[in-house]
Amino acid sequence: LTEGRAFDGVISSPLAGRSAKPRNRGETMLIDKGLGLSQTGDLLELGCDFIDYIKFGFGTAALYSRAALRAKIALITSYGVSVYPGGTFLEIAVAQGRLDEYLERCRELGFTHIEVSDGTIDLSADRRVEAIDKALAAGFSVITEVGKKDGAIELDPTLALEQVIADLTCGATKVIVEGRESGSGVGIYDQTGTLKRDEMEALVGGLSDPSLLMWEAPQKSQQVDLIHRFGPNVNLGNIAPGDVIALEALRLGLRGDTLLLSMQHEMEK
Amino acid sequence: LTEGRAFDGVISSPLAGRSAKPRNRGETMLIDKGLGLSQTGDLLELGCDFIDYIKFGFGTAALYSRAALRAKIALITSYGVSVYPGGTFLEIAVAQGRLDEYLERCRELGFTHIEVSDGTIDLSADRRVEAIDKALAAGFSVITEVGKKDGAIELDPTLALEQVIADLTCGATKVIVEGRESGSGVGIYDQTGTLKRDEMEALVGGLSDPSLLMWEAPQKSQQVDLIHRFGPNVNLGNIAPGDVIALEALRLGLRGDTLLLSMQHEMEK
Amino acid sequence: LTEGRAFDGVISSPLAGRSAKPRNRGETMLIDKGLGLSQTGDLLELGCDFIDYIKFGFGTAALYSRAALRAKIALITSYGVSVYPGGTFLEIAVAQGRLDEYLERCRELGFTHIEVSDGTIDLSADRRVEAIDKALAAGFSVITEVGKKDGAIELDPTLALEQVIADLTCGATKVIVEGRESGSGVGIYDQTGTLKRDEMEALVGGLSDPSLLMWEAPQKSQQVDLIHRFGPNVNLGNIAPGDVIALEALRLGLRGDTLLLSMQHEMEK
Repeated sequence: LTEGRAFDGVISSPLAGRSAKPRNRGETMLIDKGLGLSQTGDLLELGCDFIDYIKFGFGTAALYSRAALRAKIALITSYGVSVYPGGTFLEIAVAQGRLDEYLERCRELGFTHIEVSDGTIDLSADRRVEAIDKALAAGFSVITEVGKKDGAIELDPTLALEQVIADLTCGATKVIVEGRESGSGVGIYDQTGTLKRDEMEALVGGLSDPSLLMWEAPQKSQQVDLIHRFGPNVNLGNIAPGDVIALEALRLGLRGDTLLLSMQHEMEK
Repeated sequence: LTEGRAFDGVISSPLAGRSAKPRNRGETMLIDKGLGLSQTGDLLELGCDFIDYIKFGFGTAALYSRAALRAKIALITSYGVSVYPGGTFLEIAVAQGRLDEYLERCRELGFTHIEVSDGTIDLSADRRVEAIDKALAAGFSVITEVGKKDGAIELDPTLALEQVIADLTCGATKVIVEGRESGSGVGIYDQTGTLKRDEMEALVGGLSDPSLLMWEAPQKSQQVDLIHRFGPNVNLGNIAPGDVIALEALRLGLRGDTLLLSMQHEMEK
Repeated sequence: LTEGRAFDGVISSPLAGRSAKPRNRGETMLIDKGLGLSQTGDLLELGCDFIDYIKFGFGTAALYSRAALRAKIALITSYGVSVYPGGTFLEIAVAQGRLDEYLERCRELGFTHIEVSDGTIDLSADRRVEAIDKALAAGFSVITEVGKKDGAIELDPTLALEQVIADLTCGATKVIVEGRESGSGVGIYDQTGTLKRDEMEALVGGLSDPSLLMWEAPQKSQQVDLIHRFGPNVNLGNIAPGDVIALEALRLGLRGDTLLLSMQHEMEK
């Protein structure tokens, strides 16, 4: 803040009200599929104000050496960014009966959050509560996820809403709505990646605060639609590393797709 | 030139006549959505002979600190590459009545070119001329753009041609034909990204020199079609950073898609 | 091996039996379209255990300075990764009558393998044998490729199988099945990138060992389908640099798509 952004005092953001870090609303979660250390440093140096979480996608955390993973996690947290392994990795730990050991190792390595999901395996309500409890007890913040990765199993908004409320009651700080890396044929998106608005509204309609949800939204059209619906401070996840600056531009109305929106706001005044 | 390319004296380029920098024909414009500093250095070290312009896409320039943006621009120009902020950013400056301040800040930061467009906002003919004039007066080279980002507004080749000629008359060095980052459902491309040849020919048919235009062509098939039509020295823009070497290979006939073309040329002799 | 992977002793790989380098089965070939030197180092530092070959796509090797190409090749081989120029580049050398000079230059530069293909040009059986012989005589390992880049020429499994056997008899260590960078409308993939199972089975059915083939499989769904069919140690090529860690996660069952497969295996026991 001692030295401002490059166009401070010249251009103001067309969409106003963007939240600053640390924040609960308007969070951006990046999906990392295996960025190298210098690429990660490059990304954080430029984009750390626009990244709230870095998720090591699915079980990729297992492919690092212990030293390399520790170094990368330390680099990420040194920029004030939270970091956690993908939900699928916890599902594997649960399926292998190694939840306690998994949480302990995650602590040693420096992860700040744990994601609890059932995107691939089946998880009884009891075991889901147990996983959340144990992660909280081990000192992590917990994010949960609703939705199945298998495109043949459609999201039932009523059941998903019940799960969201149960998870939040258990102590989860936020619930992710599954969108995968692709954003197609999963959760609130149809095969072409188009937002299924009825499902989305049914889900959000039952909540006091829509910012308790984070929407996985890897495609630009999805990011635009959700910013149109919820404003610049919607929580968005599974953002590709190369799209993080572009997403912030969308949030601020600094790109055609959302600049138009800001001009409509202007005219409605 | 003191030390040649790796296969000099062994393999000659299947498509002959590729221009060298600095050039007016055969320019490549890269779209940068937020490359970090070391990634930018990496890209320039290998590819600076094949990059004529780096465009900071839409309003992403606003998201850098002043020091970081200055450093990145200085790095780019040190490799003999021109650099400018996206047209959308100028549109915002005009809409906010801050054109003079915008141009002054761009100068301080080290940008070499200004893009004047009306992809999102409406810009009267008078204000467009004023923007070009002021940018020229401030010492920039000016590139303009024709075409709307909104896919529902189809490109009218007759009107676009009039605009191209007016802009060049005002002192623009080149006119970009809008293709967005996606290359789908915009300008001379249909929803699948296929070239609309009639519109393209109508636009180019009214010009003495097709190289007064630069085609935004983010998709490989579009780059191939335009090289087939105009040869290796067609001006192409909105090239993704990771595609810049691959595009140069296409221009030289060093990839299957254009190697075939060079063999057809051979047979016609 | 002195220091293990980050979750050793905690989580075991859901899909068992993954081979370690150096290996003949389960190889991963990466397609490089022009990575800079520091990006290449970053990639190898994290992923060298999961990369068997780096291919300089098509004729991109021609675009480096001699010093830059030598340095990049030396970096790659220092990590125990094999490296070769794309098949198209050899096709150009053959078409220009410069095969001997091409092989000599490749040796000087440090390439370890040569790919012999006829994806774009026509190559008589005699000249194909000659190219393999000369590359072997010059001290390279040879990989050949079957399939045409032109989507209008469908893969004939019977003819392709004959070619595979002829190439292996000549001394090729492996034969690649063409899939291009896109994986659409080419080889064993239809326009949407879906695997054409009958063609694939016809090809593989005539071989004693399916691991004599390497499938170009740039799309995730293709990687998943081939792992389902052949197991974690199928040879896969044209993997994008950013997907190399994600592919290894697929091979090990550390991602939803193949984790399910491992659970089916479990149930069948």
